[in-house]
Amino acid sequence: MEINHNKIKVAVLGATGMVGQRFIQLLENHPWFEVAALAGSSRSAGKKYKDACRWYLEGDMPAAVADMQVLPAVPPMPVQLVFSALPADVAADIEVEFAQAGYTVCSNSSAHRYDEDVPILIPEINADHLDLLELQKSHRDWPGRIVTSPNCTTTGAVFPLKVLEELFGVEKVILVSMQAVSGAGYPGLPYLSIIDNVIPLIGGEEKKLELEPRLLLGKMNGGQRISAPMIISAQSNRVAVSDGHTICLSVKLAKPTDIDEVKEALKNYPWPEDIKELPSAPVQPMIVREEEDRPQPRLDRSAGDGMSISIGRLRPCPILDLRLVSVVHNTLRGAASGSLLNAELLKARGYLD
Amino acid sequence: MEINHNKIKVAVLGATGMVGQRFIQLLENHPWFEVAALAGSSRSAGKKYKDACRWYLEGDMPAAVADMQVLPAVPPMPVQLVFSALPADVAADIEVEFAQAGYTVCSNSSAHRYDEDVPILIPEINADHLDLLELQKSHRDWPGRIVTSPNCTTTGAVFPLKVLEELFGVEKVILVSMQAVSGAGYPGLPYLSIIDNVIPLIGGEEKKLELEPRLLLGKMNGGQRISAPMIISAQSNRVAVSDGHTICLSVKLAKPTDIDEVKEALKNYPWPEDIKELPSAPVQPMIVREEEDRPQPRLDRSAGDGMSISIGRLRPCPILDLRLVSVVHNTLRGAASGSLLNAELLKARGYLD
Amino acid sequence: MEINHNKIKVAVLGATGMVGQRFIQLLENHPWFEVAALAGSSRSAGKKYKDACRWYLEGDMPAAVADMQVLPAVPPMPVQLVFSALPADVAADIEVEFAQAGYTVCSNSSAHRYDEDVPILIPEINADHLDLLELQKSHRDWPGRIVTSPNCTTTGAVFPLKVLEELFGVEKVILVSMQAVSGAGYPGLPYLSIIDNVIPLIGGEEKKLELEPRLLLGKMNGGQRISAPMIISAQSNRVAVSDGHTICLSVKLAKPTDIDEVKEALKNYPWPEDIKELPSAPVQPMIVREEEDRPQPRLDRSAGDGMSISIGRLRPCPILDLRLVSVVHNTLRGAASGSLLNAELLKARGYLD
Amino acid sequence: MEINHNKIKVAVLGATGMVGQRFIQLLENHPWFEVAALAGSSRSAGKKYKDACRWYLEGDMPAAVADMQVLPAVPPMPVQLVFSALPADVAADIEVEFAQAGYTVCSNSSAHRYDEDVPILIPEINADHLDLLELQKSHRDWPGRIVTSPNCTTTGAVFPLKVLEELFGVEKVILVSMQAVSGAGYPGLPYLSIIDNVIPLIGGEEKKLELEPRLLLGKMNGGQRISAPMIISAQSNRVAVSDGHTICLSVKLAKPTDIDEVKEALKNYPWPEDIKELPSAPVQPMIVREEEDRPQPRLDRSAGDGMSISIGRLRPCPILDLRLVSVVHNTLRGAASGSLLNAELLKARGYLD
Repeated sequence: MEINHNKIKVAVLGATGMVGQRFIQLLENHPWFEVAALAGSSRSAGKKYKDACRWYLEGDMPAAVADMQVLPAVPPMPVQLVFSALPADVAADIEVEFAQAGYTVCSNSSAHRYDEDVPILIPEINADHLDLLELQKSHRDWPGRIVTSPNCTTTGAVFPLKVLEELFGVEKVILVSMQAVSGAGYPGLPYLSIIDNVIPLIGGEEKKLELEPRLLLGKMNGGQRISAPMIISAQSNRVAVSDGHTICLSVKLAKPTDIDEVKEALKNYPWPEDIKELPSAPVQPMIVREEEDRPQPRLDRSAGDGMSISIGRLRPCPILDLRLVSVVHNTLRGAASGSLLNAELLKARGYLD
Repeated sequence: MEINHNKIKVAVLGATGMVGQRFIQLLENHPWFEVAALAGSSRSAGKKYKDACRWYLEGDMPAAVADMQVLPAVPPMPVQLVFSALPADVAADIEVEFAQAGYTVCSNSSAHRYDEDVPILIPEINADHLDLLELQKSHRDWPGRIVTSPNCTTTGAVFPLKVLEELFGVEKVILVSMQAVSGAGYPGLPYLSIIDNVIPLIGGEEKKLELEPRLLLGKMNGGQRISAPMIISAQSNRVAVSDGHTICLSVKLAKPTDIDEVKEALKNYPWPEDIKELPSAPVQPMIVREEEDRPQPRLDRSAGDGMSISIGRLRPCPILDLRLVSVVHNTLRGAASGSLLNAELLKARGYLD
Repeated sequence: MEINHNKIKVAVLGATGMVGQRFIQLLENHPWFEVAALAGSSRSAGKKYKDACRWYLEGDMPAAVADMQVLPAVPPMPVQLVFSALPADVAADIEVEFAQAGYTVCSNSSAHRYDEDVPILIPEINADHLDLLELQKSHRDWPGRIVTSPNCTTTGAVFPLKVLEELFGVEKVILVSMQAVSGAGYPGLPYLSIIDNVIPLIGGEEKKLELEPRLLLGKMNGGQRISAPMIISAQSNRVAVSDGHTICLSVKLAKPTDIDEVKEALKNYPWPEDIKELPSAPVQPMIVREEEDRPQPRLDRSAGDGMSISIGRLRPCPILDLRLVSVVHNTLRGAASGSLLNAELLKARGYLD
Repeated sequence: MEINHNKIKVAVLGATGMVGQRFIQLLENHPWFEVAALAGSSRSAGKKYKDACRWYLEGDMPAAVADMQVLPAVPPMPVQLVFSALPADVAADIEVEFAQAGYTVCSNSSAHRYDEDVPILIPEINADHLDLLELQKSHRDWPGRIVTSPNCTTTGAVFPLKVLEELFGVEKVILVSMQAVSGAGYPGLPYLSIIDNVIPLIGGEEKKLELEPRLLLGKMNGGQRISAPMIISAQSNRVAVSDGHTICLSVKLAKPTDIDEVKEALKNYPWPEDIKELPSAPVQPMIVREEEDRPQPRLDRSAGDGMSISIGRLRPCPILDLRLVSVVHNTLRGAASGSLLNAELLKARGYLD
């Protein structure tokens, strides 16, 4: 593989899994980053990537990585930034090791997502939470840093909640999700378990959904993050969809608001312009569909190359204030592409200089 | 076809459609009823049933009906009771004509479901609403009667709500449904519309779900039905499931109650014994599953020959009081079998003597 | 569990897997047999069945087995007959051990299926192959016996081939199968691998399909089985179907035959009457569908409680002589129910006295 | 819509259907062609396209066509070339009217596909059949012309057959197809008909598959097309796949050939270089997969933007000579993109000057 000396070298940890493959696919022709190392479990380490990895995605494995040797997931690596697609249990220690060794870690795992000094970050939502990295530096005394991205369903819910919280205040949210099978990774669910079926449980998911939006929508105060005070009730279901989570939300606002005013607010929210200039950022972070039967995961998950959240069916709720539906591409915006956008923000803000 | 002179003769209106076929299948060896007439639209009338009808269900068309001639859906017919599987728009007038001509109509359509003098009936829930037939007789001055069965999703929701309302009082319900494709009849949804997809709209469904449980759980007072005062917020989704609706419920009770107490109440509710003796009644009207990932439509829809509602995942709700999941077989308990049970109740209570 | 002293005690080896569960389900109220022992791998042995087994089938686990302790798969066991649903690699030795210990083994595995002295048996097709048990006794010098059932796809193909071979002679068969996911057991294929997809490979399957019909249709001669001389070319595909294999066949007959004559032969073949009296035997071993778009797995797999093969689309072939389509329920007739019918035949023929 | 005066204006007939929408999507930024007219049935004519058409494809309707008025499908139109996505029955006359009025018609319908003076064309396979346009001109005496593209399944089969016919001669082909639901258009098959199912019939398909490869592989002789003499036996099945037909082929060659020689021939066939320069042509017209479980429709249908045929599983056949599997994207190479490539060839060869 020819190395371009102008690009920032990156590694992918957990490179053979489904999210790891997405990272590799997304980085194939990235203008800023270049894959210079791949790491996997002890079962994969030492093999060529093409021998260690069964490629799950449409299209062929990028030729540039096929013959790269899979490394064990330990520093040092000839890179500056590390994308972590590791399972949460092993990510906990490994991500710390990389931060201690001076690397910037953009993690897709939940291992450090709830640490008080680690940003759980979506650039359009809470770029100011990067200030937590100061706190992280002072707490941990390490030369590197860890930045995390949220759970995929959180990501779909938090875009409309961001607008509602900022403009009207959000007091309560009841959300019911219908989540795609790819969220469980590969092999994930057996065909015989989910075909012609709904499974009304995704282990551990509901707790994440009841916490993460509060962190993402928290306010920075004196270098610390104060969680948003809203209360969230979540119910997660697995449905027979390959990619794309659908979320039904009922929301109680802090102040009485006309539904049309809410709709205009959602349509016209001024998403930050500097984020839109990042290579992986969509032109429209959130698309408000007008058709009464949208958004739908098959039709809307790929909007903005899988980076746009699509919402619709905004209408009053007879119990709380309003109801709406949101769709997010769980393995793109909700996983690999989301972490990549975080890395791009770090680069743009000078953290990789 | 050999006619058994001891059985009550019945007709099926809308006999060629999906619910009509279910009626015929269920009536094949019924101990009390016997199909003596089939009626269809002008396109079918005059043909043999086997020529007018494309049989959608597993197994073959019952031999006894294959050569019956399809009649136009008008009285008179050589029967005592009429099952209506007609579309709501044509059902409105036709069901009235049959009642005026002296027939008992057990309807699966929504045409008269909300009339104040027409029972919307589930025998285990509100058999006492049959008293509305007195009001109906006095209002309408017809020798027959109309009894309706509720929407399929209502049916799945109302069983647990019945127990909660009776024992603790129900103030608010937020429900999100994931409904099977068979609910749209045949041909219903194109494969290309629903495969790998969720459609967050079922036209007209949410209004039904916000009204019908209040009627079913209403109290009889002086021969009239007083709707239950609970407020319901409903969001309906279509998912890629053939049969079996799944419903996520969040419920606010009238009085503070411990979750274990609620669970015991749901498990031990004394469903009426006399109903269990009806031929189509299940031994367990409602099954409380203990596994944390149940109920699931593929595994639970057929419980009790499709007549038992299965619930599970009972747990507190941080906003309202409790959350749970319910599964109902939409074309059996939620449609044809439900109406058949209503007819059996009418027979048992002497309305067909 | 109450033991009925008039029934023959049987064990199920591999009781926690998908085929093992089917055996247990089928044996629940069997008139001749009664489950008295369950065996599983070392991971399951010692546990109660309900703790060792995740029940995959519709309906609940039969109460009678829930608290039985899972045994290791070694003799002795307090039974007379053993159903083997073991994987082929472990079945090879274990089935021999049971035969040496005096048990009758009805195996669903392929381990001994191709031994020259072991019947590969379908009662309606080749009950006379039970004579191989004499050869087996003399070869092996063991007090028990092993009888096997064929591959599920073989089973679907061999019913029409039986008629054609007997009446017209079969020279060549080209078959292409579209096989259900349940054929791969549980967990079997990941949803993400097979949804919206066809996989044109089932490892090892094609060799089985090119050999087994020749064994099943072989002639007994002097106590030995002479394989039928037909040549078979097989192509196996996995499709997104839960249960029910579909097989397209092109057949060259030994003598020129009119297609209508073939059809009459297939419709009127005199399947052996004594077999129809076995408890698990269907009234119609093979159903010839007249509709031009049948058989279909969803509509026809459950015919005869999953024991009837359905064929259709009989028509000439411009290259060989004729073409047709066959559907078989792969986990019933093609697996557990097939082995059970074999056991019933053994009982009826006095092998279990 | 801004009209680019350097591009060739084209119309789409049948613009609201599934293939029509694909044409519009493909033409959105085409370097040579530009949509200047849309035509539909009398139900659509007169409406704006966005009002007449329910957009089925991923992504939004191209803005340039949304406000175009749908015209009746009759000449004249302000265009030079017409893409026909009409149903065969109405295409028969309308395509003739356009040819008589001087237009070049690139048809995706079967109406004139079998006329002896109309090319059934795939540029990489039989570009020399354009010489039939001379015959067409002399026969019909019209100033325009009609060129057709083959059936989608034919397209998948004929690429490997082209190589085999040219290098070794093909005598016999037995093919069994597993075809995607999108081949039936929209709404096409009901979900309830095809989910968990295989339908072993596609009306009229088998006759097309037994004829069309013979036309495509025919030799031009004295300005006339002589059909290839091979015999084909086809069996068509519908499977639960959205896009992408899978075809199992067994082939008898004219001369004995080693399987490795065949494989090399398939891998190294020199597809015409001039065709590869057309805007919609893929770099690799046919991809030979080495993995033993490929091609698969979900993984391979989109190769080369849906224009590359993927084949694999090449192996000997014990009855004919060899077996292989082919996958084609039925609505791209097998429909709209295929016709578009034909139009590009016409332009490149000067027919649109």
